[in-house]
Amino acid sequence: MKALRFFGAPEVTDVDVPEPKAEEALIRVRRAGVCSTDLEIVKGYMGFEGTLGHELVGEVVGATDAGWMGARVTGEINLSCARCERCLAGLGRHCASRTVLGILGKDGCFAEYVTLPLRNLHRVPDGLSDALAVFAEPLAAAYEILEQIRIAPDDRVAILGDGKLGSLIAMVLQQTGAEVVVVGRHAHKLERLAPLGLRTALADDAIDGDFDVVVEATGSAPGFERARSLLRPRGTLVLKSTYHGKLELDAAPLVIDEITVVGSRCGPFPPALRALAEGRIDPTPLIEDSFALADGVRALEKAAERGVRKVQLVCDG
Amino acid sequence: MKALRFFGAPEVTDVDVPEPKAEEALIRVRRAGVCSTDLEIVKGYMGFEGTLGHELVGEVVGATDAGWMGARVTGEINLSCARCERCLAGLGRHCASRTVLGILGKDGCFAEYVTLPLRNLHRVPDGLSDALAVFAEPLAAAYEILEQIRIAPDDRVAILGDGKLGSLIAMVLQQTGAEVVVVGRHAHKLERLAPLGLRTALADDAIDGDFDVVVEATGSAPGFERARSLLRPRGTLVLKSTYHGKLELDAAPLVIDEITVVGSRCGPFPPALRALAEGRIDPTPLIEDSFALADGVRALEKAAERGVRKVQLVCDG
Repeated sequence: MKALRFFGAPEVTDVDVPEPKAEEALIRVRRAGVCSTDLEIVKGYMGFEGTLGHELVGEVVGATDAGWMGARVTGEINLSCARCERCLAGLGRHCASRTVLGILGKDGCFAEYVTLPLRNLHRVPDGLSDALAVFAEPLAAAYEILEQIRIAPDDRVAILGDGKLGSLIAMVLQQTGAEVVVVGRHAHKLERLAPLGLRTALADDAIDGDFDVVVEATGSAPGFERARSLLRPRGTLVLKSTYHGKLELDAAPLVIDEITVVGSRCGPFPPALRALAEGRIDPTPLIEDSFALADGVRALEKAAERGVRKVQLVCDG
Repeated sequence: MKALRFFGAPEVTDVDVPEPKAEEALIRVRRAGVCSTDLEIVKGYMGFEGTLGHELVGEVVGATDAGWMGARVTGEINLSCARCERCLAGLGRHCASRTVLGILGKDGCFAEYVTLPLRNLHRVPDGLSDALAVFAEPLAAAYEILEQIRIAPDDRVAILGDGKLGSLIAMVLQQTGAEVVVVGRHAHKLERLAPLGLRTALADDAIDGDFDVVVEATGSAPGFERARSLLRPRGTLVLKSTYHGKLELDAAPLVIDEITVVGSRCGPFPPALRALAEGRIDPTPLIEDSFALADGVRALEKAAERGVRKVQLVCDG
């Protein structure tokens, strides 16, 4: 089968179809999404080698449980042991011996076929297109914020970062009823968000502070300081980004203003799939382009261009 | 009157008795406590100049409201405007135009007399000694943690730092029923905590990780990293210290392990006074020595020695 693999450089090569283990499904991948984390991996993040990709929609073509055969599915990316104390405490996404699809010790979904444990699978509701269902994984990561903190309908929320994840987070947090503003550096990216009913501001604009919640989705030290400065005392700063290297920050204001900083990673798929299926969240304006799997390297190059939205791979074409 | 003042160096000098403003009380100070923050101020923290000190017990000797006259009181240290949006939202301790007793723009209580707004005062329960009532302020700061986060009775809690504040925090968090361990660098300090029923460990000991909550009360970057490493995924790291300068830290594990970091400062006096009056918390083992106000400079020197517990000033002697 064809697969977009990374060993020092990304390349589409021919490899064997993977063999599902016990309790795993073999999935024929229909469509996959390129995430900023993939682009970081290509720059050396996590030291990953193998098949890239972790956002997918596919069809189960092999499973010991016949009930899954033929199902159109998406899948959770953390493969946990399901036996350790953390797993039994409901912290499976934090299992110390986990592998992570296309990120850590497990071949990803930029391929014609991929395997995943049955317990990682979620059925894609009928009527939801592949192109939108692929957003389940990053949208789940946005919902994780609401698993971790409470946002009240009259809260003021700022999101720093006008990229793909920042935009999805804005759509999710808008569902709470809170006043949401997206702060970004790119006027053309912010313009796309206006039709979604989201308020936007350029990063250099003067912005009234005292936000209840600020989500930092830029991954930079200046972003962290800006986020902190926009918060009210006792406000909450959500760290929602991939951080490279050390962050130098001033701890005194965190204590003096009693700020809460919440690190946030992968999240729950069911609310993401419900919001997509019900049309409450429609990421269509975030889709830039799609490429055949054979053109995977070009797809990565496109995704890495400044200001580009979500790039998808058609893997069964 | 005599006052221990700081202008580049601490010195006991004669100054005028302060004039209470409207809605303020004039308090004859009976006893005051030396806090690590006082020692930081003497090293230049906050750029404060004036009369030091913010932990006190005294007697109201002047007040427009006769009901307060003669009352034995302690007082909250943040002087807020009581009119701004933050004050009206219950965030008076974070009022942007606040002054802070002996720390920011307001002469402190290492003096024969001090003034405080009536709304800052709390009556000291009969039967509670001056020497213990002086702990109301730092004990309130320890209770602030429970204002901010929920600690469950079967949580595992570690406190890094065996100083005065770390010990008070341990006593407060022990009240939740949680398993509490104090991690410190000084065997002789930790030994004092054993009679209080607190478990202790030396910082260099191997300690089982996966704590639900870790309180960082050392104020150091290595302390922060150690605290993080002791937490379970989705655990809570409370920053309870005075931080000087920048803290360089690795943000990636905060995101990957979804850690919550909570900055924590001043807290509520009533639970502190109740716990002291009911004897549920007895800081007697934390008292090192007391000095007459006239010997205030010596008291600061003593307090700054390594491994020394709480030093108090007798201001009406």
